[in-house]
Amino acid sequence: MTLDLETARTIVAGARAQGVEAGYKPLTVVVLDPGGHLIAAEREDGSSMKRYEVAHGKAYGALSLGMGSRAIMNRAEQQAYFVAAVTHAVGGALVPVPGGVLVKDADGTLLGAVGASGDTSDNDEAAVVAGIEAAGLTAQVD
Amino acid sequence: MTLDLETARTIVAGARAQGVEAGYKPLTVVVLDPGGHLIAAEREDGSSMKRYEVAHGKAYGALSLGMGSRAIMNRAEQQAYFVAAVTHAVGGALVPVPGGVLVKDADGTLLGAVGASGDTSDNDEAAVVAGIEAAGLTAQVD
Amino acid sequence: MTLDLETARTIVAGARAQGVEAGYKPLTVVVLDPGGHLIAAEREDGSSMKRYEVAHGKAYGALSLGMGSRAIMNRAEQQAYFVAAVTHAVGGALVPVPGGVLVKDADGTLLGAVGASGDTSDNDEAAVVAGIEAAGLTAQVD
Amino acid sequence: MTLDLETARTIVAGARAQGVEAGYKPLTVVVLDPGGHLIAAEREDGSSMKRYEVAHGKAYGALSLGMGSRAIMNRAEQQAYFVAAVTHAVGGALVPVPGGVLVKDADGTLLGAVGASGDTSDNDEAAVVAGIEAAGLTAQVD
Repeated sequence: MTLDLETARTIVAGARAQGVEAGYKPLTVVVLDPGGHLIAAEREDGSSMKRYEVAHGKAYGALSLGMGSRAIMNRAEQQAYFVAAVTHAVGGALVPVPGGVLVKDADGTLLGAVGASGDTSDNDEAAVVAGIEAAGLTAQVD
Repeated sequence: MTLDLETARTIVAGARAQGVEAGYKPLTVVVLDPGGHLIAAEREDGSSMKRYEVAHGKAYGALSLGMGSRAIMNRAEQQAYFVAAVTHAVGGALVPVPGGVLVKDADGTLLGAVGASGDTSDNDEAAVVAGIEAAGLTAQVD
Repeated sequence: MTLDLETARTIVAGARAQGVEAGYKPLTVVVLDPGGHLIAAEREDGSSMKRYEVAHGKAYGALSLGMGSRAIMNRAEQQAYFVAAVTHAVGGALVPVPGGVLVKDADGTLLGAVGASGDTSDNDEAAVVAGIEAAGLTAQVD
Repeated sequence: MTLDLETARTIVAGARAQGVEAGYKPLTVVVLDPGGHLIAAEREDGSSMKRYEVAHGKAYGALSLGMGSRAIMNRAEQQAYFVAAVTHAVGGALVPVPGGVLVKDADGTLLGAVGASGDTSDNDEAAVVAGIEAAGLTAQVD
């Protein structure tokens, strides 16, 4: 099973719907394939200039280390220099706060990652999880 | 007038519809705002790994120099070293072949740019133009 | 089907065996997954300092554009500025001469890419093709 | 004496064998020559997307400063800004946690460095040390 564009669009729509329903600030949502390459992205009106880069960095970091960006935040709380170093090692795209979530199928196969940015990190993550579940897939936040 | 997300989605859908109708290879389509920041992007199934970066570079280059990427290609044919230098100057994201098109409203106000990659450069451009026109806006290819 | 490490090792061994049999200069061989990430690499004794980077760039470029590096060379012969620009757009890792080959299974599914460097580009490519075929897979050189 | 490819392969195999025996998560193992250039690398199935870059950064950092990456971690605990600065100075590839180990012969001559990533930093280092010792060489972890 792979994460095709239609599924990625469903995830983006589901994340945005959660944002609207819960009254979040405008979100930017990015879906990456397992190799870290863009499948789909949308930046809502009013979502600031570099939200794409932030959302992308959450998802890219999650794929880089094989854990949700919440787990990377926890590591950064313990060893900030480690996370700073990995950020350099992967080329700069790693944002270690919640909102970057791995996507898996029912068998646990990695299908990609989703990142969001715009509201609090916790809310960004909640939107992503809602989007992944709207597509019938499994979200791994840490 | 600004290019909002719904309009950007209409452009992406219109470009993709042109690709399907004309039998193009799978496309990646990117819409940027006047500051060169992503509004929306979609990579169709089978569109290769870095097509987002190529499509983005066409649109980003068009905004960088204020002309469609077809015009930048013409300049590259005359002065390849100039285009190479500008590519460095803008940070690497400038792809000087057709498929990066400026978007304007009826008054000539710049609203952003659209880039596509996946088929021949001419077909990539035709898809982008179709998408922009589907949104009732004006395409500037050179 | 995915390209696991054991298969990648078979490809590397097969490429190196071709080099020994045909009397090539020492080779460096790299196997990447479909997202452009390393699975395995070996640099033979006497293969010069940056051969890994060259071999990697052949394979990475092939994945970036969805064609063997021989096809990218042909494009570079026609539009050198285009290939130079794409090289920037993908972050620098694109070497447009033969020796970067896509790996597909019997159904045509993309499994990754293999790059080699050390002898002539044609011989590098021949080694890669031999390695891919030694693993029972299909090589796409252009 | 130099670290030839066959010895490097022995080190990688020894590190991986330690991982299997001790039940570590899937590892990525990289062997570099004294100039910091790749000799061999393998990423085990399930080892996440950027583990090569992390393992490489541990080994590259060790060579950069002439000490195991455990010693660099100790320095980072004292002066994080120093390690951050060196990371910039060397171009980004320096990961200051255990798992990057210098390889020396019986006379103390530097032959290269080995890096691993995938499990805890301590276990990554244990795997590397096991690999170096499997090749009859001396490991310097700090």
